[in-house]
Amino acid sequence: MTDNTALLLPAIEATADAALAARLQHLIDHKTKPLGALGQLETLALQLGLIQRSETIRFYAPQMVVFAADHGIASEGVSAFPQAVTLQMVGNMLAGGAAINVFARQHGFALQVVDAGVAAELAAHPQLLQRKIGAGTANLCAGPAMSSAQAVQAIHAGMAVVKDLPGNVVAFGEMGIANTSPAALLLARLARLPISEVVGRGTGLDDAQLVHKRSVLTRALAHHADVQEPLAVLAALGGFEIAMMAGAMLQAASERRVVLVDGFIAGAAALVACALLPAAKDYLVFCHCSAERGHHLLLAHLQATPLLNLDMRLGEGTGALLAWPLLQSASLFLAEMASFDSAGVSGKTEI
Amino acid sequence: MTDNTALLLPAIEATADAALAARLQHLIDHKTKPLGALGQLETLALQLGLIQRSETIRFYAPQMVVFAADHGIASEGVSAFPQAVTLQMVGNMLAGGAAINVFARQHGFALQVVDAGVAAELAAHPQLLQRKIGAGTANLCAGPAMSSAQAVQAIHAGMAVVKDLPGNVVAFGEMGIANTSPAALLLARLARLPISEVVGRGTGLDDAQLVHKRSVLTRALAHHADVQEPLAVLAALGGFEIAMMAGAMLQAASERRVVLVDGFIAGAAALVACALLPAAKDYLVFCHCSAERGHHLLLAHLQATPLLNLDMRLGEGTGALLAWPLLQSASLFLAEMASFDSAGVSGKTEI
Repeated sequence: MTDNTALLLPAIEATADAALAARLQHLIDHKTKPLGALGQLETLALQLGLIQRSETIRFYAPQMVVFAADHGIASEGVSAFPQAVTLQMVGNMLAGGAAINVFARQHGFALQVVDAGVAAELAAHPQLLQRKIGAGTANLCAGPAMSSAQAVQAIHAGMAVVKDLPGNVVAFGEMGIANTSPAALLLARLARLPISEVVGRGTGLDDAQLVHKRSVLTRALAHHADVQEPLAVLAALGGFEIAMMAGAMLQAASERRVVLVDGFIAGAAALVACALLPAAKDYLVFCHCSAERGHHLLLAHLQATPLLNLDMRLGEGTGALLAWPLLQSASLFLAEMASFDSAGVSGKTEI
Repeated sequence: MTDNTALLLPAIEATADAALAARLQHLIDHKTKPLGALGQLETLALQLGLIQRSETIRFYAPQMVVFAADHGIASEGVSAFPQAVTLQMVGNMLAGGAAINVFARQHGFALQVVDAGVAAELAAHPQLLQRKIGAGTANLCAGPAMSSAQAVQAIHAGMAVVKDLPGNVVAFGEMGIANTSPAALLLARLARLPISEVVGRGTGLDDAQLVHKRSVLTRALAHHADVQEPLAVLAALGGFEIAMMAGAMLQAASERRVVLVDGFIAGAAALVACALLPAAKDYLVFCHCSAERGHHLLLAHLQATPLLNLDMRLGEGTGALLAWPLLQSASLFLAEMASFDSAGVSGKTEI
């Protein structure tokens, strides 16, 4: 961890490579199927091939990293669950009982939980990385969620987490009671969307609670009306887990790893990462669109088409891992399907 | 195979069981996640538990069966590919080079190809079941696609195929040049939809070819205007692979197997199956919505929510197998996730 106040970001290369893209598209188009018939799986194969700079897509040692933190804005009553649940769910993950544990085991992902800023001390555990920036953010209704130095520190810490990981695929998830609020605020500011369109029910607010959350976030956004520059927006409206995840995404992209992006909160981190370094987007696979109200707008802003739409709203990284077999399928069809020539199958009728 | 002309269908029990459904819902709702946060995965877990009459969902020996046949209507120029491709693609599947082979290997499904009515003789192969009803259907523009006796024979043959299979999960796919035409016709007639809304580009028709296909199918539907009873509709407008798959679905449901339904053609077979025995629907998992124009209407008619929407239009069973890991995830979260009580996690804040 570093406590520099100057933001030092890694260099990220865009994946664009016209010659390789043409070779990949030729391979895809000559498989024994109608042109384009594998739909999004074809787009995915092209993206993965460009990331790996190869006509053969290989994955090894896939990693799941869950960033956990608390949020001062929770005290405004914007979540259906009490703040203590962040700590309890981290405990549940370290005990192996959360949804993300189940799906990580199913798909062979190594799981690490990072304390980015839980408002309690956590006991040491082999799967826990202690990278606490603070005991939860400040209440962003009254001031910035974190200092600029903390935002930089969190981004650098996220980068360092990824540097130490093996493998060429990394999925990011999060746990943080109230964190749909900072995510909505980041989306509203960075994508210039009305806050009313991006505030959702989170873990399950009722109608009255949703009205209250909208009013709190409207006030918060007005309080920070002058903040526009990405790093300052992150400090004012973000969260420690979101900042750290943004840093982790940037580092992963700089190392040409495939990045699996989960739901609304991870999407907000992706938004921050792409605002800082737009080339990062080439490395991001947007795994699902959640039921949280603003998520489809976030994806549209990033011009991203998600792989899954399962009406989920759990976070943790669950949507990212559920999409993982589709990446494997994209890799496998490219490697294993016969071509029209090799299989002796006729092409389209010429008329 | 039987050549009875009287249709003998298996008995299918509806899966409804209020007590078990309540126990399953209780289990699902007490997992450490916000209520409903796993979205369609929760609905799926409930369906699977009811099919298996258990709070523990187990899968074994999953089977992939591809029914192949030719279609007399191909001579009307309604497909982008020549009819010979049906035979060639069966060969490709038996050689292991088709997309369905790739995904069957990925997910550990045993693959069988059934010759339901390919317009050519196929050499014996360990993965090929010879159940040919005829060398392709007749051109349904001029008369019924098949006789009533052939429709019955095909349904019975499909039932017999499933009877001989191990396992408690079966996925069905198809190969048959021009078979989006009979599928569209079955959908138009059985769901009472305008033919113009259900005719799509199939394997890749251009605009002019699509206009031609629509005109051919409009004429065909008018020719059979008086046919309304499901078995007669199947005989007049169907295909051998569709009829056989419908029988296979009914048999699988009668044995309480989980049935993975693929795309537009498999959907048409499901429509026929449910028209014959509505309780069959309880056993069907609608795996994806394809890019073929009528498919979302077919799913809406069956009140089915597909798991995937990947803009695919390949058939073979590929969409069914891509969704398979989601069924495993549904089984695993139900079995392995901690409950709020067991994990010591707080529930929603009472206000």
